[in-house]
Parts: sequence; structure tokens; C-alpha cells
Amino acid sequence: MATTSREIHLKSRPVGTPEAANFEVVSVQVPDPGAGEVLVRNAWMSVDPYMRGRMYDRPSYVPPFQLGAPLQGGAVGQVVKSNDPKFQPGDWVESMNGWREAYVSSGAALNKLPAAGVTPQAFLGILGMPGMTAYTSFHRIGEPKPGDVVFVSGAAGAVGSTVCQIAKLRGCTVVASAGTDEKLGWLKSVGVDAGVNYKKGELLENVRAAAPKGIDIYFDNVGGEHLEVALEVARPFARFIECGMISIYNNSAPTPGPRNMAYIVGKRIKMQGFIVSDFMDMREQFYADMGAWVRGGQIKWEETVENGIENAPQAFLNLFAGANTGKMLVKLD
Amino acid sequence: MATTSREIHLKSRPVGTPEAANFEVVSVQVPDPGAGEVLVRNAWMSVDPYMRGRMYDRPSYVPPFQLGAPLQGGAVGQVVKSNDPKFQPGDWVESMNGWREAYVSSGAALNKLPAAGVTPQAFLGILGMPGMTAYTSFHRIGEPKPGDVVFVSGAAGAVGSTVCQIAKLRGCTVVASAGTDEKLGWLKSVGVDAGVNYKKGELLENVRAAAPKGIDIYFDNVGGEHLEVALEVARPFARFIECGMISIYNNSAPTPGPRNMAYIVGKRIKMQGFIVSDFMDMREQFYADMGAWVRGGQIKWEETVENGIENAPQAFLNLFAGANTGKMLVKLD
Repeated sequence: MATTSREIHLKSRPVGTPEAANFEVVSVQVPDPGAGEVLVRNAWMSVDPYMRGRMYDRPSYVPPFQLGAPLQGGAVGQVVKSNDPKFQPGDWVESMNGWREAYVSSGAALNKLPAAGVTPQAFLGILGMPGMTAYTSFHRIGEPKPGDVVFVSGAAGAVGSTVCQIAKLRGCTVVASAGTDEKLGWLKSVGVDAGVNYKKGELLENVRAAAPKGIDIYFDNVGGEHLEVALEVARPFARFIECGMISIYNNSAPTPGPRNMAYIVGKRIKMQGFIVSDFMDMREQFYADMGAWVRGGQIKWEETVENGIENAPQAFLNLFAGANTGKMLVKLD
Repeated sequence: MATTSREIHLKSRPVGTPEAANFEVVSVQVPDPGAGEVLVRNAWMSVDPYMRGRMYDRPSYVPPFQLGAPLQGGAVGQVVKSNDPKFQPGDWVESMNGWREAYVSSGAALNKLPAAGVTPQAFLGILGMPGMTAYTSFHRIGEPKPGDVVFVSGAAGAVGSTVCQIAKLRGCTVVASAGTDEKLGWLKSVGVDAGVNYKKGELLENVRAAAPKGIDIYFDNVGGEHLEVALEVARPFARFIECGMISIYNNSAPTPGPRNMAYIVGKRIKMQGFIVSDFMDMREQFYADMGAWVRGGQIKWEETVENGIENAPQAFLNLFAGANTGKMLVKLD
């Protein structure tokens, strides 16, 4: 007996900023699970800035999304039927089968969620890919020391807000950039020392005022002008953690880089890109530290939620409009 | 009894490309050495691209040159009179008192040259600061592995040509960029696998043709278009050794950076600046390895020589015109 599921297909490749017309809601019939397979109904799915990159048809570290096929991404849901003895109906599982309401998968491709005393969707955020992205790169590339000044762009997002709080736990001073005073207010409530609203006034002047002695670590979610400002205020031997450049992802024409690249030489800056899977060796350490911080209330997180699979494209588009505080999620009913 | 010496003063700060008018030859009387002091007559002095940075009046890792005062830089010469028992007349010494024919110094500020079976001026090149710059950064930042493809810009210069040969000794494939076919011919004669003349045709196409599988290490002396091309052809996890950006040092207006900075994230590139003094802990290892390679004939070097202190400014200007193969030196008689 087949199950009806709606899913989101990539209808056309975005040129510049993605639009609703690039996506399509398609109803499909999901078959009953075969031998060793499991039928899952998703409860929550993730939308993330990195997905923009997979919408280009170009060689990259992950293959591009295909036209006329469902998109992919992190999701958590509950088992409906199982032909794999490791899974029972009602079990919560995590997968990369987001952007759809239900699916059949081999049991081997699913991760059962541990009983961690948090909501299931936390495994798409603070205890999932964004949390691990923040944790691993901040330590491995950032090499933080107590007293370091850390500048975080895109600081109100899922990754940025986690970096801010880990930096505080490591004894650093944190300057955060975000696009609304409300976001900055929340960031200060979780311990950030100074906030910069990048939509108000001169970014360079405002960052200088917030970090008068300069910065030792820059966590980059944004690229563009923020990166140029970070180079300008960097101290010698600063570390730049290149997590993303959301400000230029949608540019269809090549965007000139910072005008002050020579500082990389003169200030002996290390600038390093990564993707979270590069640091899988830190997985156990991440779960141990982050689990303890979450249980101890030392790390806070916010969620911005859209409801219904049909609103998943809009949730994704909202990322580029800066509409989210914390993790952007879609609740599927 | 004073000694007459000519020296080069910075008369005015260059705006854009330095010109002869920014420099001045001044005759001075050097006094006899006092207690613990040594009188030295320079035989050779060095001109290096990094000196351009010290002609700006701005905070940097070394203080700016002062107007109306002699410039500074590496030099080798012979002791004339000594009131320090560690030095005898005729001894060869190295100092940072270049840009002048003779000087008095405390003995403590001088290094006696070892008897290494090479010319004294080799201590301004292959066994001096340029050689150590190449050796330390290539190993420490580049982390070379046999089979890596290494792209070197400014490859015919003192640092670049040394990097090319060390890379070959480490089992790498080397692609070199220089501005004349003569320079590329010399680089091939010392083992470089492929050469690109950046003044002919499209740099990106030519580098792609020379390194069809991409590059693992980029040694940057040049910045600008070369850096953008290197980002374009970089393989995942490439290391960029940011030694210098001679192509933009003289620009009086800010120069936009590479248009493809997002590759730093997507390809997980590490880009790191340095100055040679950051790697002083590798000094003994440098002398051991480079000394053995020089004695064994495994490393070659060239010199481009101007004669007479009055031609030192022109020798410096020639660096920016790409006039040198190997180390640019001024012979003082």
C-alpha cells in the first residue's frame, strides 16, 4: 500500500538570487519498504546556505542537484514501517532525505537519534551539522586562546551563534555582526560582548569601534565587505575560518575580492576553508562537549520555523534575506 | 682618521612606482671605530622587493624608512679596523647596513661569514634571507608531498627559483611563471617541468595547459591575476604560500582582490602569509640542508649585478620591471 508524499524538485537552476519559480511541489507515491528497508515520515527538515552551491551545475565537493529530481538535505522523522530489525515504528531517525514528506530508505542509511533530552529538531541544529561545523572549525582552524578577540559575521545564524557562544566558553572576547538590532540583542543575551549592525553606518568604522585592539580570529559566513573589513582590523597571525560567503553566492557575475589582500602577507594571516566532513575525526569530541554544554544550559539556540513542505522553498529564500535568527527549519506535518 | 663613504638616502616617499628622484646619493664621513666597534667596507649589498613596503609611512612589522636617512638592507663586506677582539681586518661579515659603502658598527651586530666554499655574496642569496625564505615557508606552510604539483610565480627571482629547485628535490612537479622566455629557459635548465610566460597570451589558459590536473601548492610572489588563476586551478586542500604580491606593491589606489575568493571555502584552501623571521626555529635545518645541496651542486643560482652605490636605486627599480634573473645585487668597489 503506497504512501502519498509531497516533495520539492529543482525545476530550473537559479541565475543570481533563487526565486520561487525555481522550485516545484510534486506529489509522489512512496512504495512500501522492501527487504531491509524502512518507511520514514519526516517531521522536520533543514534549509542551509550551502545548498545554494549545489544548485549550480559545476564540479564541486558534492554533486550538483539534478533538475526534475527532489532536493536533498538534513531531516529528522519517525519510522512508520520497518523491515530492518534495528528500527521500530515510532523511532526517531536522521537522514539526508529532506525536502520530502516521506521516503523509503535502506536502514543502513539512517541514524537513530539518541535519547538526549532535547527536541528531535535539535539534531538538525545545535547537535547536528551546524553545531558540528561551528565546533570543529573554530577549534581546528581558529586555534583559540583565552583573551583572543573573535569577530563573527552572520552571527545570528545557526553556525554563527554557536561559534559566538563556544568562543565565550573558551575565554575569548566576541564581536558579532548581524543585520537587525533584534538579532544583536539576542546575541548579547547569550554573552556576546559587542554587536555591529551591518546595515547601519560604515561597517569598518563600527567594527573598529567594537574591536579597538583588532581581532585574532575571524569566522566568515559572509565574504565580501565583511572579509575586507576583517583583513583591515586583523592583528598579526590572525586566523580566518572560511565557512561561507553568503553575500556572494547569488552573484551571477564574478565579484571582486578584498582590496587589501596584501595584508595576508604583511600580517601573516592564515585563511582556511573547510567543509564539516573534513573534521569527522572530531565527532566524538563534539558530541561530548556540546552534549555537556546543552545539558548544562551553557549554550542557547533559536529556531526560525516555516510550516509545511510547500513553504520549504520560501524558507530557503529567506536565508538570503537574513530573515532567520538561529536555525532555519521547516516543520512537516 | 675618518673614512669617506657614499650612502643612499630616501629623499621622498614614492607614490606608486618608485622613481630615481625618490633617492639621493650622500657623501658622509665615517668616524674611526670606538671601543668594541668595527669599521666595515661593504663589498655587496642586496635590493629586495620587501623594501618597497618600508618606503610607506605606515605601521608594519618593520618600521618605515625615514626620510633623509640611509636605507637599510642586507650587505656583506670586509673588516677594515676592529676594536672587537672577535673580528680581524679582512674578515667577511654580514649586516643589515646595506645602501652604504662603509660603516661603523658594534661587533655584536655583525655576523662573521663561515668558510663555506661559496662567494661572499651567496650569503645575500641562496644561503641568506632569500634562500631561507624559500626553504622555511615551502616546508612549513606548503607541506609538500612527492607528486604534488607546485605553481611558482615570480619564479626567476632569488626566492622563486630556489622554491622551484627545492620542490624538485622533494619529488614535486613544478610549473613556473616568469616574464621572459630566457628566464623560463634557465628555469627549465635547473629542472622546472613547465614554464609559463605571463606576458604572452592568457595566463589562465597557459597555466591550465601547463598543469592540466591542477595544483596542490601555490608559491605567491606576485598576487593580482596570478593569485586569481591559482585559485581557479587549485585542487582541494591546496596550500597557498603568500610570500609577496609585487604586482600590487606600487599601486597607489586599492586593487580589487581575486574574483573567485569563494573557492577558498569550496576547495578548502589554506592561504597563509609569513615573514622569514617567523621561522627562525628552522635556521639550523636550513643551513644543513641548503649547505649540502649547494656543496653537492643540487641547487643552482643566478645573480643580476649592478655596479657602484650610485646605481643601487636603479637596481631596486629594476626589480619591479622584472629585469633580474635570480638574486639582484649591487657590487660596491
